[in-house]
Amino acid sequence: MSLIREKIAQAAALLREFDFPCWLTFVRETGILPDPVMPFLAPGHLTWHSAFLVPPSGRAVAIVGLYDKKAIEETGAYARVEGYVEGYKAPLLAALRELDPPAIGINYSEDSEVCDGLTHGMYLTLRRLLAEIGYEDRLVSSERLVAALRARKTPGELGRIRRAIRETETIFDEVGRFLAPGRTEQDVAELVTRLRTVRGLAPAWEEGTCPAVFTGPDTAGAHYGPTARAIARGHIVNMDFGVKFENYCADLQRTFYVRREGETEAPEAVARGFRTIVRAIEAARRALRPGALGRDVDRVARETVTAAGYDEFPHALGHQVGRFAHDGTALLGPMWEKYGRRPLVPIEGGMVFTLEPRLTVEGHGVVTIEEMVVVTPEGAEFLSTPQTELRLAG
Amino acid sequence: MSLIREKIAQAAALLREFDFPCWLTFVRETGILPDPVMPFLAPGHLTWHSAFLVPPSGRAVAIVGLYDKKAIEETGAYARVEGYVEGYKAPLLAALRELDPPAIGINYSEDSEVCDGLTHGMYLTLRRLLAEIGYEDRLVSSERLVAALRARKTPGELGRIRRAIRETETIFDEVGRFLAPGRTEQDVAELVTRLRTVRGLAPAWEEGTCPAVFTGPDTAGAHYGPTARAIARGHIVNMDFGVKFENYCADLQRTFYVRREGETEAPEAVARGFRTIVRAIEAARRALRPGALGRDVDRVARETVTAAGYDEFPHALGHQVGRFAHDGTALLGPMWEKYGRRPLVPIEGGMVFTLEPRLTVEGHGVVTIEEMVVVTPEGAEFLSTPQTELRLAG
Repeated sequence: MSLIREKIAQAAALLREFDFPCWLTFVRETGILPDPVMPFLAPGHLTWHSAFLVPPSGRAVAIVGLYDKKAIEETGAYARVEGYVEGYKAPLLAALRELDPPAIGINYSEDSEVCDGLTHGMYLTLRRLLAEIGYEDRLVSSERLVAALRARKTPGELGRIRRAIRETETIFDEVGRFLAPGRTEQDVAELVTRLRTVRGLAPAWEEGTCPAVFTGPDTAGAHYGPTARAIARGHIVNMDFGVKFENYCADLQRTFYVRREGETEAPEAVARGFRTIVRAIEAARRALRPGALGRDVDRVARETVTAAGYDEFPHALGHQVGRFAHDGTALLGPMWEKYGRRPLVPIEGGMVFTLEPRLTVEGHGVVTIEEMVVVTPEGAEFLSTPQTELRLAG
Repeated sequence: MSLIREKIAQAAALLREFDFPCWLTFVRETGILPDPVMPFLAPGHLTWHSAFLVPPSGRAVAIVGLYDKKAIEETGAYARVEGYVEGYKAPLLAALRELDPPAIGINYSEDSEVCDGLTHGMYLTLRRLLAEIGYEDRLVSSERLVAALRARKTPGELGRIRRAIRETETIFDEVGRFLAPGRTEQDVAELVTRLRTVRGLAPAWEEGTCPAVFTGPDTAGAHYGPTARAIARGHIVNMDFGVKFENYCADLQRTFYVRREGETEAPEAVARGFRTIVRAIEAARRALRPGALGRDVDRVARETVTAAGYDEFPHALGHQVGRFAHDGTALLGPMWEKYGRRPLVPIEGGMVFTLEPRLTVEGHGVVTIEEMVVVTPEGAEFLSTPQTELRLAG
């Protein structure tokens, strides 16, 4: 509940900062079509068409089905809550007329999925309704507002993320002790899931690939679930995993090496790959600060990897983390078509990012580390305890 | 996996039945913005912009991020799967050009949220891309196709729903034995959740209101979570609950009466209310058949209740059930603004509906029964075991 009050107050402050007159979230059946901003506006799911109107004054108005009225009132975040039985049109148009805002920010965005919670059908409905009072051309994208609301973490949000990271790191520690030749990717995943569930924690993304576990040179590629492939000596093993703590995510990767008979450490080719990734992360972290562009931070890490003679990684260096493992709009990535304008959205203080370059060591597997950092006025600080040494098993 | 092959084949058959040239589902980050049709098209969540193209031939094409390619291929449901690294535009436009369909059905709908999975930002992106090959005005709503795909349950889908209902009924039976004066709504909910979780079953909707439990004449109203209000003698207790079995839902309500000292049965006012609801359900079931309109089926039940002197219920008589507790487009409801055109969408065989009229008995509480039925060529059959007697406690 207190999160909703916090975030609505933050939204009002952002409207004032951006000199923007009004933010409207328009949803229905949020258990089926969840606008990603809903947890900031209401507890639980809403069945009927519902509208949440935040003006710069912070005197927010909610228009919801009668059955949802009481739960919304109890958040204490709204100056007015209207519950309707037959139709939402009259109260919604009346509330908009009262504000008479020259522009109405609604949740759509081509570049950022977390700012794109309005469906096209709901957009058509809204335009049709607003035409009745001549407001239909006032609709504009709320992307900038919603992006900032998600990106600028409050202290309460950061505390939850730190806790999710600590829990995740504890589980990674146990995995390091468990790895051995003959155990399969699935064995490792089962251990991780057991350790997670006894702690009562949810996975940070869908369970089938959380954890993702990859052993050796011939794996399925990221985003693929753990297989029956057995760990063997000489393999690099890497794992991508995170838990949620009170709905806020961790997203980390760690790399292990399984020694061959007689090896006391990893072969130089593996060690060199590992050092390259650690260097790429540190270089990127130093480049990451308010006002920087994600494109440039990505390039620093990408060039560290390619300058060392490896292929560049086929993905962005890092993404924001929040209520989703992949959160936010600003992205640390190259200017590839699929990333849209996101690598050009300026970095701000309070953003939480992953840094996750990768490279392949021929005959051994993939080295990939994923750290989490928070952007502060002075630069970027590690939230995770960075992996600076290759963990050995076998 | 077999469900995906089944539903894509059904989609192709529907395209032929409706003489419609092509269905396109266009999504990104489906863990954040889940188009409700995605479980019919792909296992798990997709990270990057992805397109699923189904022509009447059934030779479906998927265009997905490289990391998702293998999992999509393994469904065996696609004639072609393209995995991209930098951009989806070229393969998507090439696949559309190859088909050259005069119309392209995409997932938006004003009237039905389960047919409205395309976000407005994604719609703008698609229109912009299609303009490059002069196809932008070919986009039309796929509502009719998606509605039929969800509504016409395959035997495999019906089997899962029947199983979800059986599991739910077993739990209701135990609740009947547990009810007693002094126990609270929350006590009842905790029992239900314990019985559900030991069976390894998920709730059919969000846990906070699944079950919803209401005791006595002065309750919070539907859609509100169980409170610390204690059951007392003379109370009507009602409960709304369902589980999922392999992702398919049950949604049932049952009504109980807690006897006063010396009562052997419920007072006539309560018994009469109960009989009225049973009659309303039976009358509606008899009116429900292929070709009927939901508006008319709703009216039969509504008028049974008002003719007996009670206020009409402030909601629709019934909704479809499927992967969501509230599923489908056709609705058994009155012509209220919030229901749009849904009460006029003709009933078809294979649809699964709830029947859930309610009424208030002054001084005792709310009588509400929710049954589930399937529409067959001959009429509607109960899937649930109908409650025909008021269950007594205390």
